[in-house]
Amino acid sequence: MTDQTHNPDAPARRDQLTGEGAIRGTARMEAFADAVFAIAFTLPIVEIVMPSIDRDGAALGPDLVALTPHYAGYLLASAVIGLYWVQHHFSGAIFRTTGHWFVIATVLFLTAIGFIAFPARVLAEHFPDVAARPAAARYWVVSLAVVALAWLLKWSVGVARGHIDARLEDDYVRRLMRRFRLVAAGNVAAAMLVFINWQAGLALSALLMAWLLLPPETPRYTTRAPVIEGES
Amino acid sequence: MTDQTHNPDAPARRDQLTGEGAIRGTARMEAFADAVFAIAFTLPIVEIVMPSIDRDGAALGPDLVALTPHYAGYLLASAVIGLYWVQHHFSGAIFRTTGHWFVIATVLFLTAIGFIAFPARVLAEHFPDVAARPAAARYWVVSLAVVALAWLLKWSVGVARGHIDARLEDDYVRRLMRRFRLVAAGNVAAAMLVFINWQAGLALSALLMAWLLLPPETPRYTTRAPVIEGES
Amino acid sequence: MTDQTHNPDAPARRDQLTGEGAIRGTARMEAFADAVFAIAFTLPIVEIVMPSIDRDGAALGPDLVALTPHYAGYLLASAVIGLYWVQHHFSGAIFRTTGHWFVIATVLFLTAIGFIAFPARVLAEHFPDVAARPAAARYWVVSLAVVALAWLLKWSVGVARGHIDARLEDDYVRRLMRRFRLVAAGNVAAAMLVFINWQAGLALSALLMAWLLLPPETPRYTTRAPVIEGES
Amino acid sequence: MTDQTHNPDAPARRDQLTGEGAIRGTARMEAFADAVFAIAFTLPIVEIVMPSIDRDGAALGPDLVALTPHYAGYLLASAVIGLYWVQHHFSGAIFRTTGHWFVIATVLFLTAIGFIAFPARVLAEHFPDVAARPAAARYWVVSLAVVALAWLLKWSVGVARGHIDARLEDDYVRRLMRRFRLVAAGNVAAAMLVFINWQAGLALSALLMAWLLLPPETPRYTTRAPVIEGES
Repeated sequence: MTDQTHNPDAPARRDQLTGEGAIRGTARMEAFADAVFAIAFTLPIVEIVMPSIDRDGAALGPDLVALTPHYAGYLLASAVIGLYWVQHHFSGAIFRTTGHWFVIATVLFLTAIGFIAFPARVLAEHFPDVAARPAAARYWVVSLAVVALAWLLKWSVGVARGHIDARLEDDYVRRLMRRFRLVAAGNVAAAMLVFINWQAGLALSALLMAWLLLPPETPRYTTRAPVIEGES
Repeated sequence: MTDQTHNPDAPARRDQLTGEGAIRGTARMEAFADAVFAIAFTLPIVEIVMPSIDRDGAALGPDLVALTPHYAGYLLASAVIGLYWVQHHFSGAIFRTTGHWFVIATVLFLTAIGFIAFPARVLAEHFPDVAARPAAARYWVVSLAVVALAWLLKWSVGVARGHIDARLEDDYVRRLMRRFRLVAAGNVAAAMLVFINWQAGLALSALLMAWLLLPPETPRYTTRAPVIEGES
Repeated sequence: MTDQTHNPDAPARRDQLTGEGAIRGTARMEAFADAVFAIAFTLPIVEIVMPSIDRDGAALGPDLVALTPHYAGYLLASAVIGLYWVQHHFSGAIFRTTGHWFVIATVLFLTAIGFIAFPARVLAEHFPDVAARPAAARYWVVSLAVVALAWLLKWSVGVARGHIDARLEDDYVRRLMRRFRLVAAGNVAAAMLVFINWQAGLALSALLMAWLLLPPETPRYTTRAPVIEGES
Repeated sequence: MTDQTHNPDAPARRDQLTGEGAIRGTARMEAFADAVFAIAFTLPIVEIVMPSIDRDGAALGPDLVALTPHYAGYLLASAVIGLYWVQHHFSGAIFRTTGHWFVIATVLFLTAIGFIAFPARVLAEHFPDVAARPAAARYWVVSLAVVALAWLLKWSVGVARGHIDARLEDDYVRRLMRRFRLVAAGNVAAAMLVFINWQAGLALSALLMAWLLLPPETPRYTTRAPVIEGES
């Protein structure tokens, strides 16, 4: 399909992967994704409403403390978006090129990322109300499952379309794929469980998130490992 | 006019294209555009208003379902902005340099992109009201036509000012131009049709959007294709 | 002070310009500035309030037309921020390095850029009210003068601290400085004039903006012009 | 652990630092951080509410002047975020690589940066009310201490995990570490002091901020200083 399947160390060229538009490096796709991540990460702050300046000034302290569920929503959104950004930053070292369908899949994934702060706020801000917890938990866990599936889709399209760095060991790539399939399957299971027992679904979902916090396996190459980008 | 018209493989230099300010590579123009795309793509989430925490907690589930038109607005805005970002990402492999008028034309295009989430929300959120559909459809289709015309303007200025990669086959560039002229003409036709029959105008506009989803033709070069950027 | 004053073609090194922190290339300063520009450029869209879905659907058309002052505010903000971004994009080809005080001056300039959409909205949205015009015009023209002064400050600090590309002809740099001094002086004059005669102040300010639309002079180098960045 | 501990001038490779995911250059981590900084820096503008167009037009002037506490909040947020961005820009020249835990620590730091505009607004907008000052000052100073601690954490993780440019003199890195430890310790002291005497805590916090305005020491290398990145 491409030169690089013959000699994995040879640099890719712009006219490879016919039918994929123009093959490009990953830099600009990463830049767009980084910007979407950064905005999704930072925007929730505008949703925290400052205590009114028309209230008694002495009430400011308690008013700021009463915003705790809002702070929790901000932190929860930061945590999940930050964690996926870390995965995305890692994957930028695994993929070497991009083509039309890979960027389309990335846009779908980013649509899910741009949305996730909303369920995070729903969960955190409605959690103090016991009657709202089941619905809030379901909304959050289902939304996380959509993100995990979109992530798996993006990853799978990238692999299927030949955008993985061909210098990586096949077994290494297979292990990564398995990890993300497990995360997606676990999230789908949590999204079903949360309708039966919301506490259990929420707990499983949180466990999977904690798993993503662990570093992925360090890349293994069939050739000498490439020099990291941006070296000077 | 420039060295590169003589030897298309020679790298461009900063003092070429007199009267265009400082000729530069496309990296920073793409970075600015990527950021505008990313913000326009992500901002609509702040427009989804969370169900009040003062309501009965048991109503949270139905309240979240009732937000469906808002979700649709978010998805529609993501789809159209994402699709144009994909076109822009592709065009970054076709243009090689930028000058004053090309960046001005890019700013005009980005002004239209930054606006398009608003008509998307108008369409999606007002669509459930039958009486509002014609006006919402007209607003949306006319706005899309403005985006398509601005895109054609940006593309045309880039070509006319000599910023296309001179290593590309002339016929290839001509085919691309024809594609974008057809998209623009079709969108203008849809913007006229929508005032006669709003359903037909909306359908034509949607068809043109679906056409943009297809990958553009892979670049063809007169010389050996350039190595993709960011290779390591 | 630095190697580059001896041999302007030699690349700069990280430990030059003692007392300036770590000397770096302009890439990351440009990236931060591009992002601030992009956000300031795109954010005003959230200020356009969609006609309520609780109103009679048949009123949607007129309601959307009645938003015209809001559209004008969005366009005015895009125009001024876009125009300064074009200047900034150009200046990225003139400066070659950054140091502590230059990035501080850039932050000050960006503080002004991040603010300018607000006076643009004040002018556009209050302009239909005749009684509000003088105050709106003063607010806008004074704000533009602050931006022009901040731009001149950034430029002057960059020049004074030795961050200009040493390969450029001295006379060329002097002509650029004169241009930006004239723009700043003209804007300060407009900011004084607007308190005497608001129409005249507003007109002078608009003329200066139109002047920025003209391309700056193409760089002239004492040595062979550098290859543009990002070439592949 | 890595080649670079043996020969600090050798470029790093992607499979070094086992257990850190994929080692990468700092470019993309800086890009994400720059974007978060830029958004946090620019977002506060949306919190300034424009005087209503339904009011008497002649009142626009005084209404705009009455927004002064809001302008102060915008300026204060810009100042603190801008200042930390300057530190971060500097640190991009000190660190050479990134790994899993370093990007996690960066996400934690950015969570604090994304939040800091809120306490800035609380302080500026509630300060005119004498009764609200102690609570506003405490909230602000404690928040700044969290930012300073998160910055120290990020820095410490980067150093501990071997991401510092190995070409730097050990003594130089030690002096930097001492500077940031002092800033963090001072901020923690201010956060305790502000509960005893809010004026003193606020003053100490402001002094520490002013200290950050001074340029950090210019890097010293054991080998010839590296050429700055992005040179052309």
